[in-house]
Amino acid sequence: METSMQPMKENTVFVGNKPVMNYVLAVVTQFNNGAGEVSIKARGKAISRAVDTAEIALNRFLDGISKKEIITSTEVIDTDTGKTNVSSIEIILSAKK
Amino acid sequence: METSMQPMKENTVFVGNKPVMNYVLAVVTQFNNGAGEVSIKARGKAISRAVDTAEIALNRFLDGISKKEIITSTEVIDTDTGKTNVSSIEIILSAKK
Repeated sequence: METSMQPMKENTVFVGNKPVMNYVLAVVTQFNNGAGEVSIKARGKAISRAVDTAEIALNRFLDGISKKEIITSTEVIDTDTGKTNVSSIEIILSAKK
Repeated sequence: METSMQPMKENTVFVGNKPVMNYVLAVVTQFNNGAGEVSIKARGKAISRAVDTAEIALNRFLDGISKKEIITSTEVIDTDTGKTNVSSIEIILSAKK
């Protein structure tokens, strides 16, 4: 993947419709690779799965990591039938200082 | 309603499987009745709807109210087949100081 030109200030996991353990593994892997902070993002119905991802990763796999911030917002999406609003969530996990 | 014997430090709306506008109306009504703080709670798949409830209430109906805190946690539930974990969310809306 070509990401070298785009500096990422944080690692992000986008949660969709796959099984929750896929996303848990992605989060745990990023911390194991040295990330100090991982952001879990989701929209619409995947929001519940994003919360599951954070809870499972923290309770079962990650030591010394905690929830830093949870942000919810509304995004405007273009669809075939016009613009529609969809809720989104961002859960930021961070290594404890 | 008889609430005098039970001191409530905050008003709570539990979000389940009904249409989202039911919960939005419940939140808006509590603020209109003078609540300074309303807590929106949900578990499992209803978590997305709780976020929708907060976003719609704030963006369309409530003036001078903001998100105070968002808390996620894991609850242990007893089922027919044993104990299981379920994620939960609490979104606290508060009148701006």
